[in-house]
Amino acid sequence: MHVAIPLYPRFTALDAVGPYTVMAFAPGHTVTFVAAEPGPVTDDRGSLTLQATASYADLPHPDVVIVPGGVGTFDALADQALVDWIAEAHAHARWTTSVCSGSLLLGAAGLLGGRKATTHWALLDFLVRYGAEAVSERVVTEGKIVTAAGVSAGIDMALTLLAQTSDVETAQAVQLVIEYDPRPPFDAGSPKTAPEGLAERALALLG
Amino acid sequence: MHVAIPLYPRFTALDAVGPYTVMAFAPGHTVTFVAAEPGPVTDDRGSLTLQATASYADLPHPDVVIVPGGVGTFDALADQALVDWIAEAHAHARWTTSVCSGSLLLGAAGLLGGRKATTHWALLDFLVRYGAEAVSERVVTEGKIVTAAGVSAGIDMALTLLAQTSDVETAQAVQLVIEYDPRPPFDAGSPKTAPEGLAERALALLG
Repeated sequence: MHVAIPLYPRFTALDAVGPYTVMAFAPGHTVTFVAAEPGPVTDDRGSLTLQATASYADLPHPDVVIVPGGVGTFDALADQALVDWIAEAHAHARWTTSVCSGSLLLGAAGLLGGRKATTHWALLDFLVRYGAEAVSERVVTEGKIVTAAGVSAGIDMALTLLAQTSDVETAQAVQLVIEYDPRPPFDAGSPKTAPEGLAERALALLG
Repeated sequence: MHVAIPLYPRFTALDAVGPYTVMAFAPGHTVTFVAAEPGPVTDDRGSLTLQATASYADLPHPDVVIVPGGVGTFDALADQALVDWIAEAHAHARWTTSVCSGSLLLGAAGLLGGRKATTHWALLDFLVRYGAEAVSERVVTEGKIVTAAGVSAGIDMALTLLAQTSDVETAQAVQLVIEYDPRPPFDAGSPKTAPEGLAERALALLG
């Protein structure tokens, strides 16, 4: 099972590396970071650089696509090589997935018309522009498309996906090896539970 | 607040990138990946390469140290330059922290004698060799040392830490921007809740 994660300038590191770690621990799964050309790609905080080891042309037909989000997504929507690669990869893939604003790229590739999908809580209205039915859920599966909510939701998405690309027992074994038994110190991870006024403060961090 | 994350061959990607993402979103925090020499460092799955942008000599006295774990930790225990850097950095740091098997490196640096600490569930017995009182908790704070359980626990640790290096409201805002409202699809993230026999299967994934 070959998993491709496209990287573009100013992706969010955890969007890519959460699902990477889950899938890379699974037997029979190979994960490759791809980009327009192999080489370094820097995240949206500016301090983390990951290596893409293959170009889009090198890996046109992966079995699984995982598109991360990030502050750079809005520029990436105009990156025709990336959007075309997603559309072409999707046509052949078993699963096409996204984390956070990565679902906007699935939308730009024409994959979300009439389909339920999710994204970061602050961006649900943007999804509608691509004809999607935007839903506020952690992980949304519609046919062979799986979309996740913001950033850390990629871990939940990848474990859900792994139960499909492998089996439930393997997904549980990966969950146990990464000790994914979360204990957030605060109950502020969703706008539904966060203290009043926190959303504005959270969005200001993206600047 | 300058945060240093040392990278060594065969670290676990999420151990480093979970806390990185949390701290890098916080105002007034700069995060730098360090290594013996600046350059690429590859993770324990073999498919992810992060850039270290500073050497140990470049950054001897960060305010915060976050030591990731990984399959490579056992080799890293014999890496005297790394162990010495941790000991020296700790002497001046406000906070010295670890994720997963990273706490064994704190132990090798002589920081854990007589102190409560934690690590990946499979490695608690190893901690005792360094004189630590090994406890099975998600995040353990002892003075200025904070240790986390396996891999994904680094996210909980970093949010706990950020409430100290910044304030609770900032930590909550970061939690909201990364939508850290976890919904694991299975209840298998701890040996206390995982199905019988899953621990052996999980450990086999590390090979």
